[in-house]
Amino acid sequence: MSSGGEFELIARLTRGLVGGAGVEEGIGDDCALLDPGGDEHLLATCDSQVEGNHFTLHTSTPQQIGRKALAVNLSDIAAMGGIPRYALISLILPPQCPALDEIYAGLREEAERYGTVIVGGNIATTGRTGQLIIDITLLGTVERGRALLRSGAQAGDLLCVTGQPGESAAGLHTLLYPNPDYASEALEVVQARHQTPQPRLREGRILNRFGPQIVTALIDVSDGVSGDLGHLCERSRLGALVETERLPLSAPLRSIAATAAHDPYAWFLHGGEDYELLFTVTPVHAQTVIEAIQSETGTPVSIIGSMRAASEGLTLRHADGSITPLEIASWDHLQLEREIG
Amino acid sequence: MSSGGEFELIARLTRGLVGGAGVEEGIGDDCALLDPGGDEHLLATCDSQVEGNHFTLHTSTPQQIGRKALAVNLSDIAAMGGIPRYALISLILPPQCPALDEIYAGLREEAERYGTVIVGGNIATTGRTGQLIIDITLLGTVERGRALLRSGAQAGDLLCVTGQPGESAAGLHTLLYPNPDYASEALEVVQARHQTPQPRLREGRILNRFGPQIVTALIDVSDGVSGDLGHLCERSRLGALVETERLPLSAPLRSIAATAAHDPYAWFLHGGEDYELLFTVTPVHAQTVIEAIQSETGTPVSIIGSMRAASEGLTLRHADGSITPLEIASWDHLQLEREIG
Repeated sequence: MSSGGEFELIARLTRGLVGGAGVEEGIGDDCALLDPGGDEHLLATCDSQVEGNHFTLHTSTPQQIGRKALAVNLSDIAAMGGIPRYALISLILPPQCPALDEIYAGLREEAERYGTVIVGGNIATTGRTGQLIIDITLLGTVERGRALLRSGAQAGDLLCVTGQPGESAAGLHTLLYPNPDYASEALEVVQARHQTPQPRLREGRILNRFGPQIVTALIDVSDGVSGDLGHLCERSRLGALVETERLPLSAPLRSIAATAAHDPYAWFLHGGEDYELLFTVTPVHAQTVIEAIQSETGTPVSIIGSMRAASEGLTLRHADGSITPLEIASWDHLQLEREIG
Repeated sequence: MSSGGEFELIARLTRGLVGGAGVEEGIGDDCALLDPGGDEHLLATCDSQVEGNHFTLHTSTPQQIGRKALAVNLSDIAAMGGIPRYALISLILPPQCPALDEIYAGLREEAERYGTVIVGGNIATTGRTGQLIIDITLLGTVERGRALLRSGAQAGDLLCVTGQPGESAAGLHTLLYPNPDYASEALEVVQARHQTPQPRLREGRILNRFGPQIVTALIDVSDGVSGDLGHLCERSRLGALVETERLPLSAPLRSIAATAAHDPYAWFLHGGEDYELLFTVTPVHAQTVIEAIQSETGTPVSIIGSMRAASEGLTLRHADGSITPLEIASWDHLQLEREIG
């Protein structure tokens, strides 16, 4: 299902659902934000990875598949500025699943790396089909009143992104279409970005330290910069202007794009699965926030645009000063299925 | 996968996993028991329902499928003496899923009925296969120090069960093998028990009120009385003696069993999917506890045996006084698949 279809369907099924006791934020942000009554709020998120759709054993090792299945959930905790705590791992197994122990070892490795405890699980079988599904619910905590939501951006805030999006999509492309002409160093970088994305938990905690008055909105880039910016704008009821000249296209991304004759901007804007953080910040504090992240983690941060009134929509300013609409072309999870299956 | 295989596999994959900060109980009880720092402990459980394995559209309506998918998780909260709070609903959809809105309506209805808020969700597709999967994580709360675990039973405690197990398995049998000779009233009772099991949340809260000093161990009956008693004994490092003369076989169960020429005791002991509560209680308090449940909820409670030293194993005392081993023959989730698929 395309992400567009997924969001529409969730909206239809959950229409009219209201919150309840202890629910600060329900459906619609990176995590649910819950108040069980202590000093800390609880974060809860779930995400599933389906073989042939989100991963294949042709393009990742079993251990990488396990690591990434947890990493995409860890990224949702990072996208609230929270600390991951507890994971529940639900496996749906095909009749034969020879790599299961290695996949689970990857899950355990990633959990340990990020201080997360596997506290529960379930195993079921699909019986007659051949797809492995890893469905994870991850719980985290965040200080009361300090969660960073998608909804707090103000017009005039600057739009920033960690790292260099687009590499994951480029990496997937090289795995699907091997080509001896790819530069080997670039290939290594983009494939690693696709196979073992690094959830930006430390960066999220630095943003949390500044708090929601300064870091006004936060989301992770799973669907692609354009798609996730669209979510942020929708929740904040704003538009945004992205400046192409400011987009941090990495050297490996440019190298692979040149060899593949692919537009590197398209990968950056619409590629998906980067698991970088996209956030808005008050202009006066932007430099301080950026420097804190860069000096403490080494992760680059770029200002790529600014937030505008909703009436201005999502737009792209090009090098020649022209402004065009920024189309949302989110990563289609079935692309892989169609190309590989 | 048979339940036996499932438990073995979970044990293998999670071997050596240790707890961590805030983890009171990890894998091995009905729910994980977590301490996020407030007055209450957090309960977390996940369970998935796979089409063709746990349910089929031939034997349940879409709304019943949705209700039951949540009910089985609610039952895990009941089995800790807790209060359900928040649900995360993960759907894995086949390419065509015409009944999805009705299934989701059933989920919402059951959530509302038990004061549970749907706070998150995820939708993915299986792409090329035809099985719907509903994977739910349910969070609940329980007062600090008041969770009822599987592990606290003492030799000499009495073994009790709510309701009348076996009806769900009888109901499934009548759905798989329709027979015009079944008494219609009995048929209605046992099919309802299979299609819309009632999680024993109120009963669990009454047990919670007495607390773990009196209600020493608690589990819900999902795999069957023998299988779940086996889990309780394993966690409590005990054996148990079940007395066949004390088993509360319901009139509808006896009626269906007679028509089907099936042993009603086998359904009671090994049928599964009853979602009743099986608990141990100190002998001196047993009558008080039983009367509290019966008078406040109308749900019958029966003493069916007593806890013994581990060396005595799991045994069954028959009407003639003879004692035989109680074999664990848990419900095989693939039985339905094999018979229907």
